[in-house]
Amino acid sequence: MARPVTLFTGQWADLPLEELAARAARWGFDGLELACWGDHFDVQRALQEPDYVQGRWAILHQHGLQCFAISNHLVGQAVCDPIDRRHQGVLPAHVWGNGDPEGVHARAAQEMMNTARAAAKFGVPQVNGFTGSAIWHLLYSFPPNDFTTIAQGYQEFAGRWNPIIDVYDQEGVKFGLEVHPTEIAYDYVTTRLALDAIGRRPGFGINFDPSHFAHQSLDAVPFVEEFADRIYHVHVKDSKKFLNGRNSILGSHLNFGDARRGWDFVSPGHGDVDFEALFRALNRIGYQGPLSIEWEDSGMDRDWGAPDALAFVRRTDFSPSAIAFDAAFQKR
Amino acid sequence: MARPVTLFTGQWADLPLEELAARAARWGFDGLELACWGDHFDVQRALQEPDYVQGRWAILHQHGLQCFAISNHLVGQAVCDPIDRRHQGVLPAHVWGNGDPEGVHARAAQEMMNTARAAAKFGVPQVNGFTGSAIWHLLYSFPPNDFTTIAQGYQEFAGRWNPIIDVYDQEGVKFGLEVHPTEIAYDYVTTRLALDAIGRRPGFGINFDPSHFAHQSLDAVPFVEEFADRIYHVHVKDSKKFLNGRNSILGSHLNFGDARRGWDFVSPGHGDVDFEALFRALNRIGYQGPLSIEWEDSGMDRDWGAPDALAFVRRTDFSPSAIAFDAAFQKR
Amino acid sequence: MARPVTLFTGQWADLPLEELAARAARWGFDGLELACWGDHFDVQRALQEPDYVQGRWAILHQHGLQCFAISNHLVGQAVCDPIDRRHQGVLPAHVWGNGDPEGVHARAAQEMMNTARAAAKFGVPQVNGFTGSAIWHLLYSFPPNDFTTIAQGYQEFAGRWNPIIDVYDQEGVKFGLEVHPTEIAYDYVTTRLALDAIGRRPGFGINFDPSHFAHQSLDAVPFVEEFADRIYHVHVKDSKKFLNGRNSILGSHLNFGDARRGWDFVSPGHGDVDFEALFRALNRIGYQGPLSIEWEDSGMDRDWGAPDALAFVRRTDFSPSAIAFDAAFQKR
Amino acid sequence: MARPVTLFTGQWADLPLEELAARAARWGFDGLELACWGDHFDVQRALQEPDYVQGRWAILHQHGLQCFAISNHLVGQAVCDPIDRRHQGVLPAHVWGNGDPEGVHARAAQEMMNTARAAAKFGVPQVNGFTGSAIWHLLYSFPPNDFTTIAQGYQEFAGRWNPIIDVYDQEGVKFGLEVHPTEIAYDYVTTRLALDAIGRRPGFGINFDPSHFAHQSLDAVPFVEEFADRIYHVHVKDSKKFLNGRNSILGSHLNFGDARRGWDFVSPGHGDVDFEALFRALNRIGYQGPLSIEWEDSGMDRDWGAPDALAFVRRTDFSPSAIAFDAAFQKR
Amino acid sequence: MARPVTLFTGQWADLPLEELAARAARWGFDGLELACWGDHFDVQRALQEPDYVQGRWAILHQHGLQCFAISNHLVGQAVCDPIDRRHQGVLPAHVWGNGDPEGVHARAAQEMMNTARAAAKFGVPQVNGFTGSAIWHLLYSFPPNDFTTIAQGYQEFAGRWNPIIDVYDQEGVKFGLEVHPTEIAYDYVTTRLALDAIGRRPGFGINFDPSHFAHQSLDAVPFVEEFADRIYHVHVKDSKKFLNGRNSILGSHLNFGDARRGWDFVSPGHGDVDFEALFRALNRIGYQGPLSIEWEDSGMDRDWGAPDALAFVRRTDFSPSAIAFDAAFQKR
Amino acid sequence: MARPVTLFTGQWADLPLEELAARAARWGFDGLELACWGDHFDVQRALQEPDYVQGRWAILHQHGLQCFAISNHLVGQAVCDPIDRRHQGVLPAHVWGNGDPEGVHARAAQEMMNTARAAAKFGVPQVNGFTGSAIWHLLYSFPPNDFTTIAQGYQEFAGRWNPIIDVYDQEGVKFGLEVHPTEIAYDYVTTRLALDAIGRRPGFGINFDPSHFAHQSLDAVPFVEEFADRIYHVHVKDSKKFLNGRNSILGSHLNFGDARRGWDFVSPGHGDVDFEALFRALNRIGYQGPLSIEWEDSGMDRDWGAPDALAFVRRTDFSPSAIAFDAAFQKR
Repeated sequence: MARPVTLFTGQWADLPLEELAARAARWGFDGLELACWGDHFDVQRALQEPDYVQGRWAILHQHGLQCFAISNHLVGQAVCDPIDRRHQGVLPAHVWGNGDPEGVHARAAQEMMNTARAAAKFGVPQVNGFTGSAIWHLLYSFPPNDFTTIAQGYQEFAGRWNPIIDVYDQEGVKFGLEVHPTEIAYDYVTTRLALDAIGRRPGFGINFDPSHFAHQSLDAVPFVEEFADRIYHVHVKDSKKFLNGRNSILGSHLNFGDARRGWDFVSPGHGDVDFEALFRALNRIGYQGPLSIEWEDSGMDRDWGAPDALAFVRRTDFSPSAIAFDAAFQKR
Repeated sequence: MARPVTLFTGQWADLPLEELAARAARWGFDGLELACWGDHFDVQRALQEPDYVQGRWAILHQHGLQCFAISNHLVGQAVCDPIDRRHQGVLPAHVWGNGDPEGVHARAAQEMMNTARAAAKFGVPQVNGFTGSAIWHLLYSFPPNDFTTIAQGYQEFAGRWNPIIDVYDQEGVKFGLEVHPTEIAYDYVTTRLALDAIGRRPGFGINFDPSHFAHQSLDAVPFVEEFADRIYHVHVKDSKKFLNGRNSILGSHLNFGDARRGWDFVSPGHGDVDFEALFRALNRIGYQGPLSIEWEDSGMDRDWGAPDALAFVRRTDFSPSAIAFDAAFQKR
Repeated sequence: MARPVTLFTGQWADLPLEELAARAARWGFDGLELACWGDHFDVQRALQEPDYVQGRWAILHQHGLQCFAISNHLVGQAVCDPIDRRHQGVLPAHVWGNGDPEGVHARAAQEMMNTARAAAKFGVPQVNGFTGSAIWHLLYSFPPNDFTTIAQGYQEFAGRWNPIIDVYDQEGVKFGLEVHPTEIAYDYVTTRLALDAIGRRPGFGINFDPSHFAHQSLDAVPFVEEFADRIYHVHVKDSKKFLNGRNSILGSHLNFGDARRGWDFVSPGHGDVDFEALFRALNRIGYQGPLSIEWEDSGMDRDWGAPDALAFVRRTDFSPSAIAFDAAFQKR
Repeated sequence: MARPVTLFTGQWADLPLEELAARAARWGFDGLELACWGDHFDVQRALQEPDYVQGRWAILHQHGLQCFAISNHLVGQAVCDPIDRRHQGVLPAHVWGNGDPEGVHARAAQEMMNTARAAAKFGVPQVNGFTGSAIWHLLYSFPPNDFTTIAQGYQEFAGRWNPIIDVYDQEGVKFGLEVHPTEIAYDYVTTRLALDAIGRRPGFGINFDPSHFAHQSLDAVPFVEEFADRIYHVHVKDSKKFLNGRNSILGSHLNFGDARRGWDFVSPGHGDVDFEALFRALNRIGYQGPLSIEWEDSGMDRDWGAPDALAFVRRTDFSPSAIAFDAAFQKR
Repeated sequence: MARPVTLFTGQWADLPLEELAARAARWGFDGLELACWGDHFDVQRALQEPDYVQGRWAILHQHGLQCFAISNHLVGQAVCDPIDRRHQGVLPAHVWGNGDPEGVHARAAQEMMNTARAAAKFGVPQVNGFTGSAIWHLLYSFPPNDFTTIAQGYQEFAGRWNPIIDVYDQEGVKFGLEVHPTEIAYDYVTTRLALDAIGRRPGFGINFDPSHFAHQSLDAVPFVEEFADRIYHVHVKDSKKFLNGRNSILGSHLNFGDARRGWDFVSPGHGDVDFEALFRALNRIGYQGPLSIEWEDSGMDRDWGAPDALAFVRRTDFSPSAIAFDAAFQKR
Repeated sequence: MARPVTLFTGQWADLPLEELAARAARWGFDGLELACWGDHFDVQRALQEPDYVQGRWAILHQHGLQCFAISNHLVGQAVCDPIDRRHQGVLPAHVWGNGDPEGVHARAAQEMMNTARAAAKFGVPQVNGFTGSAIWHLLYSFPPNDFTTIAQGYQEFAGRWNPIIDVYDQEGVKFGLEVHPTEIAYDYVTTRLALDAIGRRPGFGINFDPSHFAHQSLDAVPFVEEFADRIYHVHVKDSKKFLNGRNSILGSHLNFGDARRGWDFVSPGHGDVDFEALFRALNRIGYQGPLSIEWEDSGMDRDWGAPDALAFVRRTDFSPSAIAFDAAFQKR
């Protein structure tokens, strides 16, 4: 039996949940991964309003949709990041507050704990998100890094996130970091370091999204094999390199959607990710969770793209075999 | 006639100039590009001590060496960069001062002006270096950039560097930015923007170094063709990608020399740069200046590498043709 | 909204228009691009018979088909070409006449003017076609070309086509050269030269067909970007290289369909053209015209191929996005 | 008209023919290629029981299925192989007997003759299978081969198979060796040698299966062209290389389905075989027989895979053209 | 023992033989292949002046140089080509005459016969050259070729060259066509056709030059294997593709040396030809003749390039083995 | 300081040691790795004759040559292999005896113990060789392997080699298996299994030869990193793939040197091995032992090849760096 396919609602936050749910159901999705922004899933209301979570379920059930995870990337980012005006643009007002960095860090951490509590109340065992990073901006070591600073970045991450994950453990919810540039972990090396820093505690795992690997020239398959016991959730998103000798793989400080970039996000199946290889690897490690389409393509109409992506996943995510093909040759 | 080949002294700053000059001459170099750190070329002493520049020339002449340029990357970096502890590690004490960012910016700008004055006194028409950048750290647009901030970065660069270049113009010296990640310009798109921001004034040009292009998947040839009138100086340095599906092209926050990086600098001729294609392009645009070997390879002994690099350039930098090969077929 | 998809009738000229229209409609095409040979669109009858063009529309409308362009490649070819027996095989008798080259040139030019008049009468604003070339056969410079001869070829082209385009301007019709080997323009360099020769007048533009670019190792995307204001019509045709070390990219003077050739035309989606990249580029330049399938594949039954090609275009030519995917992250 | 598509039953031998026939018909196959193991086609019963072959046809006809070939790979393998315990696992008891090698060879040869007789009685003109090889295990020449031993391997093959093929000639049945590692012929060179050894007699031809070529880096197209007059039957099976610098193309003595192998069999269309190129080549040589899907993929559920494979073949095996595409340009 | 390395003098025809011989000897060449233009080898003088050929040898011997072949490409070209003004530019006046095409054909044929006579008198058994072609300009079949015209081109070639080769046979000299675009044979297919047309007579063979193959994507190795018995002489020349999506492999009607071409000739070892593979193949077919460097590189000074090319050949053309490497393992 | 470069004498066993030593010294080698066949190093004489080992040293010292290892591949092969006539061709008579397999196994094991004793007496701490394998011939699992048989192969290897290695431990000598097809270990997977089977005892390590990896598409670098503590000795040998769609990577049962093979051994630097990457990896793991050229190239004269290989290693095996290149930027 194939895995359920959900739609991550983050890129549709301009639409009310009711409308998006209706569309997703019409396209044939099995469920939604709710973003904790827009009106899709409000952590504060979930904790404070007695009927909020039932109301969310009511909308979902009305359209026959399931929910396996909620996501709170934007707040998680503020836990470790050096804070600047960009965070103000994406944080809820009560998290931003007056914008003093340590206060933002603390309020963001608190909100991530509350996200666990809200997820538990909602009855969903998985929260996906970002962690931010105190050291990401030191990516290129010039002026030369003092690499003890880099090491401290991992320690700071552990110091800020261990208390958060304590709450997740209490609530029976798991956190899945979307391994991603700008986060504490964004590739093999940094994922190992981040997991080590936090003691490889089970409450902290991975929301694996291969679109962040392809443009780094990273192969997704050995990653899910190496971190098999921490793959808690999977995003289906794609990216594509456009390298012609004039476009930089670093992106030239251009916005997504600019054709002069060396890579960009594209609708699943239109890019460089080898999804069949990935799904076969997920079969081998026994991943049974949802495949959640996070749809981002600056050059495609999203209402054309979402069902196209769903169809792509349906025809690519086949069931694994329960029998060796050459077993039939042999006598029993 | 082939171009002169010089050795950039920046990576040998632990050696006194006398010793390095002796080695370079023995290896067969035509000259040195003097770094403004270590004891190789001291801007303050050049301006203040009557005999300093003659003393430098004496050392060079003793070994039959020429000099076409001096370089001051580390101070230039501090002109636009957000200042942090890394800058303290590489700046002269009188530039760092008490480390207050605006003071550092101002003192660095002043030192870059003085570098022009010292070059003029030394009798060398070219200063190479870095500019720093107020926006480099916003490389990956998450949290999403406000792209007016990016645009302001270029304006800030112009605001800080125009007064510096005024001095270069007065002194009859040209500045060559080494187009490089962490600088205001690091690829095609950003070089166009930076040159536009500063009004394409002739005093501000390029020290072209192809090693910073190869790992971005950028082709050096159309770059020197597009910016032919701003190629004032050329570094011969190489880099190599080590992409096996597990190493990230972003470098994993690992130091140079770590085999888990997706790319690294290597001795010229040992990497991905197509130097023959580059030298042919330099022939086509009429570049007559030096080829200056900036030697960086974490896995090779530098005393093995420098003469190896020189031999590589000598056998690759052939003279262009003065005759069409099929002219001989035809009657005069 | 996706672009209309039409079928170019040139390769079906053995069928009467009625029959082809019925098939095309059954397959689901939006319209036809009528060839000015076979019985599909007869320039002389269009000008001379009062009801001819209405009769053509009647057939089209009966099957719900649109028409955005007519094409007259074969006559256009004779305007500039050195004339030989091959032209007799493809020209109408009244254009070939007695076959004297200058007479053929003049009559072909007259017929191309009449094609504009017929298009105007038919109510279609676009004529596609070829120009021929006085210099194409000098492709490989041995014996060594006198390159003033090459330059004269462009002047001769301008001299012959400017009077023709005068008529197009008068009639409010545009001409689209299908950039193609054997024509005055067949790649980037020659398109620039041809457009310059004719003064970049708006009446003379391009019918872009990527199948002629792939086997030259040319990338279609920067072409439509560079010549965005001259892309008046687009053909969807594909070609594929079959290079195994024994097949020549030059084709060995073998007919299309011979497996020993180094390249051949194939049904769209079966070859080397990256149509998704092309369609994204057409979105960026704002091309709203038809995608006209010119179906040529010597190894496939055309009645199998035409609907296969249509389905390919339908699933590849998606609508562009009207919203940035990360806009939803941000507060309004 | 496209070719019929059949399903080879060998990998479904755990299912009774009735059940498999029902499934295959439901999926839309045109017929079955019956394996001579499991209960699908029993050579002994076919020869001994008066109604057996009618009974098989009755099952097939009940589901509207055709049959063009039967296959007896496992017994054929024992004709030339050095005999070991692996053969006992796959041979019928009456062929294995007491397991003495010469006896096994003789009984296997007798059974292959009987297979021809059974095919003739069944009314099917084609038997596919293996030959085994006395020399396959000497693949890597260390300790250094005496190459006269290799030459003798071909002679031994001819000596054992000529009497078998005599029976095929008498019965009007043809044998098709599936060219395959472990057989006397597995690539271009060895197929030439094997056909030469047996005098290129028409009774001995090829069941071509491209999946055995892809992992050897062999191109299927020139093979079917070179051996066009011996391509008697075609298997549609696929294989894929998984080469990452750590997986060996030799397979590491790992079982199929292990992700550490350098190659593996995969469902048709999911691997390295270029089926479109192959089908075009089959068109050129005039092959009109069935395309028989031999389904093997250790990572895919076979009931998902078989209809997926069928759909793949239906959309890839187009009819060839009966008309030159540029014929329509020219006057008749 | 390695093969002798000679320098073809055609690209140095502006220098008197005395000067070129002195340079070639100083660089270390073993000999010269004399061009029949400039003053290097004058066919008419060789036949008419009693001491001319001794005088040529005297110059060669003075510098210790050998001679294995003379070459007359420019006149040979005029035997079959449609004659135009380009031929006037490269033909001797007595061959061009009044330029009437049939007269030029006849006089060129006569001169090629005289070239054989002169070679015989000179004591050199090999003449290299071109044939021209009546059909080369029909390379791209549009307007569609009547392929009987193509077939006639081969017959015309045979008709014109058979009488010429009769003289070669009488004189004991062999002709080597340099297989090359613009000639009757330029790849595998056309070489087969040309050799067939002329009856595969031994007097007509090949001067193999791999530089004309690389840009056609042709592999030189199977060519020398297929035509092993006709490889009479070998040129060492190189070419390189410059394909970046904007440069056409067809060359854009640009002169050699223009960086916008998709390919160009380059000094040996600087291009796409795999000379080691070629030399190994020449070893296998037993070719013992000279390797003659035909030096053409529009971007390199020829006096830098010629010795660079010679050094390249010396280090690449190793002697073949006379012993199997694993023979030493085995007991005698 | 670079590593010593030795020549493995196995492929020169037809020459007496005196003659080979003289040649190797003349070419500039630092030493020899003596083969235990031919007359280079005779195990029996070393143990039985009092002056034998001094005699060997005398020859070496006379030519200034060192010795770091002796090798006994041919006898080691017979320890685990199924014995056939090929072994008789390469074994000493006293090991082959009457050829009964178990007797050969026992005598070969005894001889490998004696080789350790002889090495110790000779004063050389390293013996290289092969192990043979009971299961290699089951490489392709058809008829389907019973994989318990494969597992038993590793156990049998351990059972036969543990007593041998006991002697090595006693003698203070290490054994280095040349990981190689036909041996118990030939890639990553099988090396892990073999080392595990023998308990990862230090007496049993690896003689690493990258030529056996390249044709398996295996990357040598991660191998030496993974097995860093078992890399006891390194062979410099190269292999090259010749894949053109017609040559099989499995070699077609053709002898080395046949151009129809899909791969072959070639002189170092002429093949697919990336020696610079390998030598950098050896630097990282701290390997200080010899680089021993095992010269095998069926297409090159060995007396041309050996000094060519030596020069290749000398220019590629540079010393590692003792200083970080950006250390000079920073203040002390």
